[in-house]
Amino acid sequence: MSYDIRDLALAERGQQRIDWAARHMPVLRQVRDEFAAAKPFQGRRIAASLHITTETAVLLYALQAGGAELALCASNPLSTRDDVCAALVARGIAVYAQYGEDLPTYQRHLEQTLAIQPHLVMDDGADLIAALHNRPGDNTVLAGIEETTTGVVRVRAMADQKVLRFPVVAVNDTPTKRYFDNRYGTGQNTIDGILRATNVLLAGATFVVAGYGWCGRGIAMRARGMGARVIVSEINATRALEAIMDGFQVLPMHEAAPLGDIFVTATGMAGVIRREHFLTMKDGAILANSGHFDIEVDTAGLRDLAVGEAQLREHMTEFELPHQRKVYLLGQGRLIGQAAAEASPAAIMDLSFADQALSTRYLLEAYQQLDPKVYDVPSEIDERVAALKLRALGVQLDTLNQDQLAYQHSWQMGTV
Amino acid sequence: MSYDIRDLALAERGQQRIDWAARHMPVLRQVRDEFAAAKPFQGRRIAASLHITTETAVLLYALQAGGAELALCASNPLSTRDDVCAALVARGIAVYAQYGEDLPTYQRHLEQTLAIQPHLVMDDGADLIAALHNRPGDNTVLAGIEETTTGVVRVRAMADQKVLRFPVVAVNDTPTKRYFDNRYGTGQNTIDGILRATNVLLAGATFVVAGYGWCGRGIAMRARGMGARVIVSEINATRALEAIMDGFQVLPMHEAAPLGDIFVTATGMAGVIRREHFLTMKDGAILANSGHFDIEVDTAGLRDLAVGEAQLREHMTEFELPHQRKVYLLGQGRLIGQAAAEASPAAIMDLSFADQALSTRYLLEAYQQLDPKVYDVPSEIDERVAALKLRALGVQLDTLNQDQLAYQHSWQMGTV
Amino acid sequence: MSYDIRDLALAERGQQRIDWAARHMPVLRQVRDEFAAAKPFQGRRIAASLHITTETAVLLYALQAGGAELALCASNPLSTRDDVCAALVARGIAVYAQYGEDLPTYQRHLEQTLAIQPHLVMDDGADLIAALHNRPGDNTVLAGIEETTTGVVRVRAMADQKVLRFPVVAVNDTPTKRYFDNRYGTGQNTIDGILRATNVLLAGATFVVAGYGWCGRGIAMRARGMGARVIVSEINATRALEAIMDGFQVLPMHEAAPLGDIFVTATGMAGVIRREHFLTMKDGAILANSGHFDIEVDTAGLRDLAVGEAQLREHMTEFELPHQRKVYLLGQGRLIGQAAAEASPAAIMDLSFADQALSTRYLLEAYQQLDPKVYDVPSEIDERVAALKLRALGVQLDTLNQDQLAYQHSWQMGTV
Amino acid sequence: MSYDIRDLALAERGQQRIDWAARHMPVLRQVRDEFAAAKPFQGRRIAASLHITTETAVLLYALQAGGAELALCASNPLSTRDDVCAALVARGIAVYAQYGEDLPTYQRHLEQTLAIQPHLVMDDGADLIAALHNRPGDNTVLAGIEETTTGVVRVRAMADQKVLRFPVVAVNDTPTKRYFDNRYGTGQNTIDGILRATNVLLAGATFVVAGYGWCGRGIAMRARGMGARVIVSEINATRALEAIMDGFQVLPMHEAAPLGDIFVTATGMAGVIRREHFLTMKDGAILANSGHFDIEVDTAGLRDLAVGEAQLREHMTEFELPHQRKVYLLGQGRLIGQAAAEASPAAIMDLSFADQALSTRYLLEAYQQLDPKVYDVPSEIDERVAALKLRALGVQLDTLNQDQLAYQHSWQMGTV
Repeated sequence: MSYDIRDLALAERGQQRIDWAARHMPVLRQVRDEFAAAKPFQGRRIAASLHITTETAVLLYALQAGGAELALCASNPLSTRDDVCAALVARGIAVYAQYGEDLPTYQRHLEQTLAIQPHLVMDDGADLIAALHNRPGDNTVLAGIEETTTGVVRVRAMADQKVLRFPVVAVNDTPTKRYFDNRYGTGQNTIDGILRATNVLLAGATFVVAGYGWCGRGIAMRARGMGARVIVSEINATRALEAIMDGFQVLPMHEAAPLGDIFVTATGMAGVIRREHFLTMKDGAILANSGHFDIEVDTAGLRDLAVGEAQLREHMTEFELPHQRKVYLLGQGRLIGQAAAEASPAAIMDLSFADQALSTRYLLEAYQQLDPKVYDVPSEIDERVAALKLRALGVQLDTLNQDQLAYQHSWQMGTV
Repeated sequence: MSYDIRDLALAERGQQRIDWAARHMPVLRQVRDEFAAAKPFQGRRIAASLHITTETAVLLYALQAGGAELALCASNPLSTRDDVCAALVARGIAVYAQYGEDLPTYQRHLEQTLAIQPHLVMDDGADLIAALHNRPGDNTVLAGIEETTTGVVRVRAMADQKVLRFPVVAVNDTPTKRYFDNRYGTGQNTIDGILRATNVLLAGATFVVAGYGWCGRGIAMRARGMGARVIVSEINATRALEAIMDGFQVLPMHEAAPLGDIFVTATGMAGVIRREHFLTMKDGAILANSGHFDIEVDTAGLRDLAVGEAQLREHMTEFELPHQRKVYLLGQGRLIGQAAAEASPAAIMDLSFADQALSTRYLLEAYQQLDPKVYDVPSEIDERVAALKLRALGVQLDTLNQDQLAYQHSWQMGTV
Repeated sequence: MSYDIRDLALAERGQQRIDWAARHMPVLRQVRDEFAAAKPFQGRRIAASLHITTETAVLLYALQAGGAELALCASNPLSTRDDVCAALVARGIAVYAQYGEDLPTYQRHLEQTLAIQPHLVMDDGADLIAALHNRPGDNTVLAGIEETTTGVVRVRAMADQKVLRFPVVAVNDTPTKRYFDNRYGTGQNTIDGILRATNVLLAGATFVVAGYGWCGRGIAMRARGMGARVIVSEINATRALEAIMDGFQVLPMHEAAPLGDIFVTATGMAGVIRREHFLTMKDGAILANSGHFDIEVDTAGLRDLAVGEAQLREHMTEFELPHQRKVYLLGQGRLIGQAAAEASPAAIMDLSFADQALSTRYLLEAYQQLDPKVYDVPSEIDERVAALKLRALGVQLDTLNQDQLAYQHSWQMGTV
Repeated sequence: MSYDIRDLALAERGQQRIDWAARHMPVLRQVRDEFAAAKPFQGRRIAASLHITTETAVLLYALQAGGAELALCASNPLSTRDDVCAALVARGIAVYAQYGEDLPTYQRHLEQTLAIQPHLVMDDGADLIAALHNRPGDNTVLAGIEETTTGVVRVRAMADQKVLRFPVVAVNDTPTKRYFDNRYGTGQNTIDGILRATNVLLAGATFVVAGYGWCGRGIAMRARGMGARVIVSEINATRALEAIMDGFQVLPMHEAAPLGDIFVTATGMAGVIRREHFLTMKDGAILANSGHFDIEVDTAGLRDLAVGEAQLREHMTEFELPHQRKVYLLGQGRLIGQAAAEASPAAIMDLSFADQALSTRYLLEAYQQLDPKVYDVPSEIDERVAALKLRALGVQLDTLNQDQLAYQHSWQMGTV
C-alpha cells in the first residue's frame, strides 16, 4: 500500500486518541457494527478528502469494516493530525497527508488519492469533485458526498452549469448535520481555537461575527456565553432581524471594524474582512476565520498592507500596519477550530459521519436511479441518526396515543 | 352597518391604545400608505377571524385604507379587547365580538362575519375556512389566508383530502412570521401571561415546556432568561437533540410531570397534559397553554378529576385533586399570552401583519393562476417585509462587492 | 378599631389573593406557627409603613399571631392594593391607606399609624423613622427595622449625625434579603412592570440600566434574558468593570441617552435621568424607575420641558417634547414593579419578611443591649432563613465529614 | 546569579509570549512605569512562589523596574512555563522551577528561593509562608502577600493560632481580585483547560460544579454559556439558594455523582469527590479540579480503587474501576486551568497583579505600623486599580453633580 505521511511511529498515540473519540461516537459505532455484518462496500473503492482528525478515523474504520478500500487526503493542510494519519496507515488505509504541507504537496496528495480510481468520492469543500471535473472524463466515479456549506455551493454551481457528472448527496444540508455540526460544533471549536491561539479574555471583549447562518449563530451564542459583547454583520435581512432579536447588535463590517477586539468570519464568502477594514481596526485586534476556505479574511491584502510580520505564538501572526497599529491573524486565516483546536468534538461528528456513512451505502445502492444533481440525505437516514443518538444518550421521547394520532389528521375540530 | 360589541363608548380609549401599537408597526404603516395611494381592494369584501387586539386594528385600517369592506369576528373569545372593537366600529368596520363570549355567541358571530359574502377570508386557526367548507357551496370566496401553525395543519388536511375549494396562503410558514412571532412573540407573551396570571417567581422554578418547535423554543429561551430551570418534552428526535444541546433537560411528559412547578404546552396537539400527568404533579403545579386551541391541556379531564374548583385570581383557577393536591390552570387553558397578557407585541405583529396585508393584495391579483392548495407567502413579500423592518430600525446590512458576486457563482476556486 | 381604606367589601377577594401568596411563603408560615405558639409580641404595638401587597399581609398575620397590635400605612401610594387593605382590616389590623392617595393623605395616614404609640416601627424607605425624628421626643419606640437600600442610607445618615434615637436593624443588608429581593425580585418585577405598562417587545430593544448594584444587575440580567441589548451606566469603577465582563456595554448616561429604547434607573440617587438626557432621546423612548423613591427620573424636569402630556395606557404617560419627539414615562416614575406589576413575588418576600419577622422578635428581646445605631440582621437569623427555605424547596446540602472538618482548621498541609 | 530551569535557550520565545501578555496588562504597565521612576524597592529582596506564566513575568518585571532583587519558585509544578522561566533568568531574575518537577525538587526550589533572605514574600497558596514558619526564626521578612482563597485560609489559621510573625496582605479578598480573577478568570480558564484536555462537547453535557463561591459561579456561568446543563453542590444554604435562583439544579454530591458527565471542584476543601462518588459515576465521567490544591478530587482514593490506569491524552488519565466503568481524571487533579490551559488571561491578571504590585509598595512603606495579622488590600489601591483599568478600556463613568452629592448626604427627603 502506498502512502505519504509524517511518521508511522506515531500510530499508537494516534490510535489511543481515536479510541477516545470513538467513546463519544455511539451512533457511528453502531453503524460500523452493521457494516461489519453486511459488508455493503465489498469491492468498492472510496477516495476521501477530509479533515484528518480522530473522528474522521472512526468514520473510515466504519467504511473499512463494510469492506471498502480507502484512500485519503486532507481537505485542509492545517487540520491534519499526523498521529491519526499514522494510525490509519497502520490499519491499512492509504493516507496522503502531512500537517502543514505546502500547496504543491496538497495538490499531489489529492492526485494520489484519486489514483485509487474510486467508485465514490467523499468530499469536504469539493476539492476532489472539482479536480475530477477539471480533467478529461473519469469513468469509475458513480457518486459523491459533500459535507460543507462551501462545497455544496460549488457543486450546485456545477449542477446549474450542467457540468456535474454524477449524483452528489449534500450531507451539509441535512438537519442532523447542519443544526448540530454547524451550530454546536463550530460554535464550540471556534471559541476553543481562539482561546488556544491567544489565551485572551473573552469576558467583556467586543466580538464581531460576520455571518449569522448556522455557524455564525453558534459562534455568536458561545461568544456571548463566555461573556463577550457580540456584534453581527449580515447581508440577509431576515437573518439580521433574527440576530437583533437574539439581542445582538447588527452593524455593517465597516462600522464594526473600529469597534471589535476579536473578529470571526463564517460566511462562505471571500474578502469579508479586507484592506478597508484593517485600516480602521483598533491596535491589538484579533482576526480569525471559521468558514471552510481561507478566503474570508483577505490575508493576501493584509500581508500587502503590513510593514512587519512576526509569529508571536504557534497559531498567531502579528501584522504591523503602516499607522503603527498591530493586528493578529490566527491560524493563517484557515478555519480556526481546525487549525488551532481539534475541530468539532466527537459527539457532534458522530451525527455528521453517521449521515455520511449511511449516505455512502445509500448512494452505492441507488446511484443508478439518480441524476447528476445535488440530493439531500434521505430523511429516513437523518431521522434514524437522530433516534440512535437519543437512544445512546438515554433520552426518551413522548409518543402520540391513538386519540392524538386521530387528532393529527382531523381538520374539523376547532374552537368548540 | 351591523355590529355586535360590548360598548361603543370605549372607542376613544381603544383608539389611543391602537395609536400606541401603530407607533411600533412602521412596516405596516408604510404598507397602509401604499394601499391608501393604490386602492387595491376597491370593491372587495374581506371577512376576518382574528385575535382582536390593538395590532389587529392597525392591520384592518391598512386594508380599509386600500378600499376593502371589512367584517371581523374573534378567533378566540378570551383575546378580544372590547375597547378595540369599539374603535374599529367607530371607524366603520363591522365587528362581531365581545370579550368572554360563550360558544353559541362565538358561532353566531362567525356566521355574521361570513354574511358579508367575502371575496377573501383571513383566518387564525382556520375556523372561518372550516365553517365555509362545512356548508353547501359558497360562491364569493376567491382565496384565503391562514396565520397559525394549527390552522395550516387543518387547511393542509383539507387540501390533502381534496375538499379545499380555493387557494390559501399560509402566512405562518413564512420566515418573517414563523421565526419572529412564534419564537420572540410567543416567547415573550407566554412569560408575560404567566406573570400577570400568577405573579410567581420564575427564578429557580422548574419550568416544563411541551414541544420544541418555534414557539416552544421561544418559551424555553425566555423562561431560562428569567432564571427558570427548563425541561422540554418532545416527540421528534431532531428537535429533542437540539433542546439537549441548547442545555435543556429532555424528558417524556410522564417523567416531567412530578418535577415541574410550571407547565406550558406549545405543540398543536391535543391532550398533551392529561389525567395520568395531573395525578403525579406536585401540590401547587401551574398549567398553561400557548398553542392555538385550548386542547393541549386536557381541561375536561382535569375538571372530571377535581373534587373542588375555585377562581383564585382573574386568570387562575384552582383545582383540588382527590389526593389533596391542588393544581392551578391559567386562562382556562386557552392560549395564555392572549388570555392573560396582550398577545405578541406590536413590533412583532408588524411583520406578520405586513406579510398578511401584502399577501392579501397578492391573492386578489393572482388567485386566477392558483389552485385550491396551500401556498407559501411569495418570497419577494417576505424579503421586502424584512428589509422594510430593518430600515425602520435604522440597521444597515453589508452588501457584496463585484469580486464577491463573482466568487458566489464560481466553483473552480478552492484550496489554492 | 380606626382605619381608612377604600372599600371593606373587597376583603374576601383580598384574602383569596393573600392565601395564594401564602402558598409560596413556607418560611414565613413556619415562623408564624412559632409565633402563634410562643406569643413573643404580647402587649407590643408595632407601626409599619410598607408596600401593602398580599405578601405584606402574610407578614402582618405572623406578627399578629405572635400577639402584636398593628397599625399600617403605605410606603408608596401606588403599590397599595385596596383589596389587601380590606382583608387586613377584616382581620383586625388598623390600616390607613388607599391606592393612589395624594400627598396630604399619605402624610395624614402616616401620622394616624404613629398614633398607635408603637414600641417598634417597621419601615420601608424610612419615612416613619424620619417622621418620628422630625418632631419632639417620642417615648414609646424601642427599636426600628428598615428594609430598603434607600432607607438604610437615610438612617445611617441620622446615626452619623448623632440624631438617631433607637437601634435600627437594616434588613436590606442581610444576604437573604439583598441577594434575593434586590436581584431576583426586582429583576423580575421590573420586567413584569414594563410589560404590563407597555406591552413592548424586549427582544432587540436597547435597554439602558442606570446602576449596577444588586437591583441593577438583576434587571440587566433579566432584560438580557428577554432578548434586549443592555447598556449599563455606573458611577463606581469596580461595578462598571463587572458589568463589562458580564458582557454589557457601559456608557455614561449622556452617551446612552440617544441610544436607548427603554431606560430603567436603580441607583438610590436623585436626577439620574434629567433634562439634558430627555433632550437627546429617541422618539418613543420609555422611562421607568426601580429605585425606592420617584426621584431617579426627574419627572418634574420632564413635565417642565414637555409641551404636551397624555395618559396613553393605565401606567404610561406620553410627554411631547419641544423638538417633536415623544417619550413615555411609566408609573409616574414610581417604582415600576410596584406601580404597574405586583412587586416581588411571594417566594422572594418569604425570605425578606422572615428576616423581618425574626428581627422584630430579636429587637424586642435585645433592644436594651443595643445602642442607637444601625445593626445588621444577626447572622443566625439570616442563616436560619436560608436553611428553612432550602428545606421547603426540598433541596439538600452537602455536609463536611470529620476529615474535612479537620482539614478546614489546618494550615500545615500544602503542596505535599 | 544562581538558578535552576529547564532550558535557557527558550528565553526568546518566552519573551515573545510575555510581550503578548503585556499588551493586555495596561494597568500593570502603568504601575511599572511609576516604579521605574520612583524605585521604591531599591535594596529590597523579594521571594515569590507563583504560577510561572507570562503574566507573572510582567509582574516581576514591574517589581524589578522598581529596584527589587527577586527570587522565584513555582506554586504549582504543572503550571510552570519553561520558556517564561528562561526569559526571566535572561533578564536577571533568579528562577528555581521546571515544568512537572517532582515533590523533592519542588521543596528544594522553595528553599533555594528563600535563601535570598527576602524582605518580603509573595505567595500563592501560602507554601512560602508556611515553610518560613516551620523552621526556627527568620529575621529578614518584614511582610507577606498572599493571593489565593486557599492560602488566605491557611494564613488566617496561623494568625488565629498566634503563630504568624509578620503582617500579610490578602490580595485574594479585594474586589478587583476576587470578583474578576476568581469569577471571570477561573470561569474561562476552567472551560479552556477542559476543552484542551479532552475536546469533549460541552453542549448538552451534564456538568457538575462543586462549590458556588466566586470561582464556582464563574465556572457554572461559563459551562452554561457553552450549552451544558449545570448541577451545583454546596454546603452553604445562602449560596445554594443563589444557585437555584440562577437557574441551576442543586444536589448533594452523592446524588449528582451518577448524573454528571463532567465534574469540577472549586471549594478549597479536601475530598469533595471521593471513593463513594467514583463508584456511582457513569462510564466515561470526567473529573477536574479548579481549586488551588490537588486535594479536592481524592486522586489517591481513585488510584486505590482503580484496576487499570492509562494516559490517554496529555492531560487526561483513564482509570478503570472494578465494575468495568472508566473515569477520566484531568491534569492529575491539579488546577485544570493552570495544568491544561494557560491560567487566567492577562487582562484579568492585570488587575490581581496590579493589586499585588501596589500592595508590595504599601507593605514595604507601612510594615512598621502593622501587626502580624491578615490585612485587606487598602481600598485606595483597589479603587485605583479599577479606575486605571476602565481608563485603559476607554470606558467612562457617570459622575455625581452638586445636587446629587447633596442628596447623598440628606436623610430628610422622602416621599414628598
